[in-house]
Amino acid sequence: MINIIGFYQTRFGELWEKSLTSLLKEAIFGVLKEANLEINQINAIFFGNMMAGVLENNLHTASKIAEIIQRNIPIFRVEAACASGGAAFHLATKYLNDNCQKTVLVLGAEKMTDYSPEEVTSALAAASSGEEQEAGLTFPGLYALMANFYLQKYHYNEENLAYVSYKNHYHGSLNEKAHFQNKLTIEKIVQSPYVAYPLKVLDSSPISDGAAALIITNDKNLVKKSKASVLVLASEVATDTINLFQRKSLDEILSTKIAAELAFKKAGIERKQINVAEVHDCFSIAEILAMEDLGFWKKGEGGRKIKELSTLLNQSSLTVNPSGGLKAAGHPVGATGIKQIGEIFLQLTKKAEKRQVKNAKYGLAHNVGGSGGTAVVTILAS
Amino acid sequence: MINIIGFYQTRFGELWEKSLTSLLKEAIFGVLKEANLEINQINAIFFGNMMAGVLENNLHTASKIAEIIQRNIPIFRVEAACASGGAAFHLATKYLNDNCQKTVLVLGAEKMTDYSPEEVTSALAAASSGEEQEAGLTFPGLYALMANFYLQKYHYNEENLAYVSYKNHYHGSLNEKAHFQNKLTIEKIVQSPYVAYPLKVLDSSPISDGAAALIITNDKNLVKKSKASVLVLASEVATDTINLFQRKSLDEILSTKIAAELAFKKAGIERKQINVAEVHDCFSIAEILAMEDLGFWKKGEGGRKIKELSTLLNQSSLTVNPSGGLKAAGHPVGATGIKQIGEIFLQLTKKAEKRQVKNAKYGLAHNVGGSGGTAVVTILAS
Repeated sequence: MINIIGFYQTRFGELWEKSLTSLLKEAIFGVLKEANLEINQINAIFFGNMMAGVLENNLHTASKIAEIIQRNIPIFRVEAACASGGAAFHLATKYLNDNCQKTVLVLGAEKMTDYSPEEVTSALAAASSGEEQEAGLTFPGLYALMANFYLQKYHYNEENLAYVSYKNHYHGSLNEKAHFQNKLTIEKIVQSPYVAYPLKVLDSSPISDGAAALIITNDKNLVKKSKASVLVLASEVATDTINLFQRKSLDEILSTKIAAELAFKKAGIERKQINVAEVHDCFSIAEILAMEDLGFWKKGEGGRKIKELSTLLNQSSLTVNPSGGLKAAGHPVGATGIKQIGEIFLQLTKKAEKRQVKNAKYGLAHNVGGSGGTAVVTILAS
Repeated sequence: MINIIGFYQTRFGELWEKSLTSLLKEAIFGVLKEANLEINQINAIFFGNMMAGVLENNLHTASKIAEIIQRNIPIFRVEAACASGGAAFHLATKYLNDNCQKTVLVLGAEKMTDYSPEEVTSALAAASSGEEQEAGLTFPGLYALMANFYLQKYHYNEENLAYVSYKNHYHGSLNEKAHFQNKLTIEKIVQSPYVAYPLKVLDSSPISDGAAALIITNDKNLVKKSKASVLVLASEVATDTINLFQRKSLDEILSTKIAAELAFKKAGIERKQINVAEVHDCFSIAEILAMEDLGFWKKGEGGRKIKELSTLLNQSSLTVNPSGGLKAAGHPVGATGIKQIGEIFLQLTKKAEKRQVKNAKYGLAHNVGGSGGTAVVTILAS
């Protein structure tokens, strides 16, 4: 039985005064304080980070973290593009299952805003294939291909997509750690400039700095003594081709479908029991596909469903992306998967303040790498 | 009980005709053939790679591998600089311990020779700290600091170091997969040009391309049916500060000492029982420090011991780096840790041909990241 007993995140945003190291320090010592633990109670650290190598020529972050904490414990850097945080969490749970009465710190961080948009766009493109990069396909372009296919196949238009950003910015306005805390109108979203047709600036998650950390344990005494704890029912990973052109279909993310099937089977609960979910909305189309591929909505009905705004805070039995999602809360890549699970932790322990989902008992986090080459689905229970 | 049931490595060297993808394909399908398995018998893949992000802007290799194998299984990229392979192996064993009757493919690869020496030297420097990079300290420089300190403290000279390369090139001459298969004389090594005083070209491991793969399983039936199997007694990881100037001493690698202590304790055997070891000789001084820090030699006596050549093939009860080590067999960074364990597998299953260590029952592999920020020690038994 693995429990989460602490969560901390830095503010997400353009944190020009903070380096990757200072973000790591804040998250590590922040989560230890939250969980009321000392560093010597941590047996291992798993760290999700995508771009420190490409952007600032810093690899081998395990030893960077060893230096920060002044300990010689096992530390691992895991990289799965934008799913780096989720993959780090997954491997941390595997690590715990092999070790009785141990406690692991799971960390995610990314420093993105010290670089030019061209540099960051190129670094993000490292999550796609060499062929896609050579063809000039950046991530907005890849998701735009999926959006075009989806809108045409199911007869929706760009306004349908806009409701994702509308909802998530509303949620972001209730989250003091969010990159963007402003509400948006559907009109403003639809009228924002195109990035890659049909996706616009306001369909897209931002380039953010930030870090997040969780503490997970299978030590029953620590769970008993903790201020708050949440049970990890399932954490599952699936992969798919890196190239979009190798996929059978452009209107589904197969890795999400497979990981979700495995996770619900492992957790032993049904979709309708989930009260709160954080899903990977790197672009508006991504949340719609995710809701379908996770099995919450039928394939093709997402464009209609999102317009009903049933997944807005406390409008139904399922709230989606109460943190503001990647769109409004921000997307410091390696930190995102950790923040998603952390948001579910806050919701299930009734600490989500202004954005608290009522009667939240079961929660799900969904983290995607690249255009769907990796997906991680985590199910938690209060 | 985890067993290794297959090993494959590509030729290591300057493989200009091969891309990272083609190296991965060769290693994946090569090891499946060696173990007489189909890809659908593999439940997960762990991949060690350091530099594909920095050198060729390719991250998210999990989905690259998913595309190669046309499967949607969990795949993880692990990065710990030059210990990426060892760390991937370690996490794969943790993964197996959480899952009964499963089989994992552990993979390591690096493509380094398509780039200029300046580009590769800069990419390798990503394993050191930002401060060290700003000071102009490349890896030869970092190990040269350790070598200077060691030679002065214990009253040795450059000739003592040369015996490491002499021995490992002799071993490399017996290994058809080795980058260098030529023998060297002590005179030639000592007269080779300096890279960073007191280290010379022939004290240094080369820049290599290559891939290596292992199959490990806890499925008893697969072990029974396998042509050859080797038991994993222990795999332990420790870390240390990324900055050399933060260490208490320059004549020891603390992470190696800690990982070795843990590994021997876990394995329940003594140092003297080890018949064959692959240790991380990125530079000649590194093998001497490793032999001391692993506990085979006392601190300070390594300079004398190496000159006795007792660790040359079958000269005593312990042979070290029969593959040729990093120095002669080559150092395609992410592949190195896998190749080391694979060499021990070959030795313990009596398949090492011309370089077979006699009566090899217990073996050890030792993989280091950076200047010692990470160390992985693995102990195997026939």
